[in-house]
Amino acid sequence: MPVIAIDLGGTKLASAVFSEDGTLLSEEMLPLDQKAGKAVGDLIISQIQNLAEQQRQIGEDIIAIGVCVPGISYQSRGTVWAPNIMGWENYPLRNHIESVIKNIPVIIDSDRACYIMGEAWQGAAKDCMDAIYLAVGTGIGTGIMINRKVFRGANDIAGAIGWMALEPPYKEEYRESGCFESQASGTGIAATAKRLVQSTTGYNGSLKNTEIDAKAVFEAYAHNDPIAQKIISHAIDLWAMAAANLVSLFNPQKIIFGGGVFGPAVTFIPGIEKEARKWAQPVSINQVRFEPSALGPQSALYGAAMLAIEKVKPSFLHA
Amino acid sequence: MPVIAIDLGGTKLASAVFSEDGTLLSEEMLPLDQKAGKAVGDLIISQIQNLAEQQRQIGEDIIAIGVCVPGISYQSRGTVWAPNIMGWENYPLRNHIESVIKNIPVIIDSDRACYIMGEAWQGAAKDCMDAIYLAVGTGIGTGIMINRKVFRGANDIAGAIGWMALEPPYKEEYRESGCFESQASGTGIAATAKRLVQSTTGYNGSLKNTEIDAKAVFEAYAHNDPIAQKIISHAIDLWAMAAANLVSLFNPQKIIFGGGVFGPAVTFIPGIEKEARKWAQPVSINQVRFEPSALGPQSALYGAAMLAIEKVKPSFLHA
Repeated sequence: MPVIAIDLGGTKLASAVFSEDGTLLSEEMLPLDQKAGKAVGDLIISQIQNLAEQQRQIGEDIIAIGVCVPGISYQSRGTVWAPNIMGWENYPLRNHIESVIKNIPVIIDSDRACYIMGEAWQGAAKDCMDAIYLAVGTGIGTGIMINRKVFRGANDIAGAIGWMALEPPYKEEYRESGCFESQASGTGIAATAKRLVQSTTGYNGSLKNTEIDAKAVFEAYAHNDPIAQKIISHAIDLWAMAAANLVSLFNPQKIIFGGGVFGPAVTFIPGIEKEARKWAQPVSINQVRFEPSALGPQSALYGAAMLAIEKVKPSFLHA
Repeated sequence: MPVIAIDLGGTKLASAVFSEDGTLLSEEMLPLDQKAGKAVGDLIISQIQNLAEQQRQIGEDIIAIGVCVPGISYQSRGTVWAPNIMGWENYPLRNHIESVIKNIPVIIDSDRACYIMGEAWQGAAKDCMDAIYLAVGTGIGTGIMINRKVFRGANDIAGAIGWMALEPPYKEEYRESGCFESQASGTGIAATAKRLVQSTTGYNGSLKNTEIDAKAVFEAYAHNDPIAQKIISHAIDLWAMAAANLVSLFNPQKIIFGGGVFGPAVTFIPGIEKEARKWAQPVSINQVRFEPSALGPQSALYGAAMLAIEKVKPSFLHA
């Protein structure tokens, strides 16, 4: 019996139907077109209705719905905080969906929870009880799986690794998004490059007269641009320190690197591991593997589907 | 019905009898007298036999035994790694005890697990589901409680926060015990003071012609010694960064500061919290409290007793 998976991003809505055994049966992408607040909830609901109707026409009933949101999902209240969706500071998404979609269980979880559980279901963490997904994109977050379950913390905001303190003393530029994220996320890499290009007299490289984004910095790095080299080398050090800290604290079986930056940074994983080895608890670092995401941008859809199935069949993962 | 708790240190063995409701009925301390290997196991066993016999004479049967070891307890194998006990690199403590003590369940756990579970039972984390004990003594470690259970990681070595990477670039002096521990443990504070006293020309303070230990550094700090001020200020920054990282990653309800250094450093907890507030995830830091250990050096005994009771009455904590 199939499940529906929804992956809400800041600008688009991905949706899919999965079979219980983990096969992606169909996938669709819709633009958000600047929608905000309740209109985004309405779009999610109408897409759920469309997919459920399609399945009904071929004689299949949807048994559960998983929704991945780009932010925090408060499990007990059913509300969502999603900074990139206007009006979703404290949005009652579960109530909204359940007011229209009756009799099908709905599970809502954060993108980082969905990443790791997608990898656990059909990706790089299939063989793990304990694994962590380090997501480096416009922001940085971690999805943490302990004993095949999402680790949430006391109030659903565990895993906020973008705020990891890695480099004293404290600087004002860490205030908005944290020490780690402000330097080693896609946004952080681009912002640091902009600052350095402006402040470096005599710099005449490829980042000089262009709109700088992380992609441009990686391209410049590949052509030995000195500013890009400096920024990416430092990001590699910070990724390594953060990964080492996850290893020392969580003693996981795998650290999985994903998000838009891994992506181009995937070639640095061996270098990150080498550097992390210096810092981490020496027994734990020998028990862990560093791997790229196996599902790429689809890990969120897989994770939403997996959490939906787990909701209605709690034992299926442990069979 | 009572339980026996054993707390093995590097130089002495503490033991106690507890009632099920958390009352410490009796406590005793024995020196290890340089014992090593199997002789330490024999001492533990003979003390268990003594205490069990004492209880039998007053008509009480011991229902479980909890043993706290200064190192790692490998749960599946029942072996122990304890760097301060000669011959305990991989010691089969559970087999040894069970070969003599029949019919009474034995639980063995690490000191850091016992610290947090002791506080959870009768101390500062009584009201918490999720809390972390940051133990700063000769070394640094954390006991992590998630949903009223010890968090162990894939292979029982989670919580090795002494290895936390907090200050790049990597230095050789981090190799033995990690970046955080080599600077902010009691041993690290003393070693750093020794290095600075030797390398600072013209220094004539109270640390000049003395055996430097952490206590001496704290005393010098209280008298405005410049080297002590520098070292303790830096330790405060590192304690704050580490605590902030625990908050951002684990979203706990409490961070509990204990171990020999807290102790004298307990007066710095408000300053540590103020500094941690700069670094940590801003929602999580408002949900956590920083507190000193309520049980002090006895938290390990309480924790060993609690884990022993939990072993035979798994539901007692969740009643």
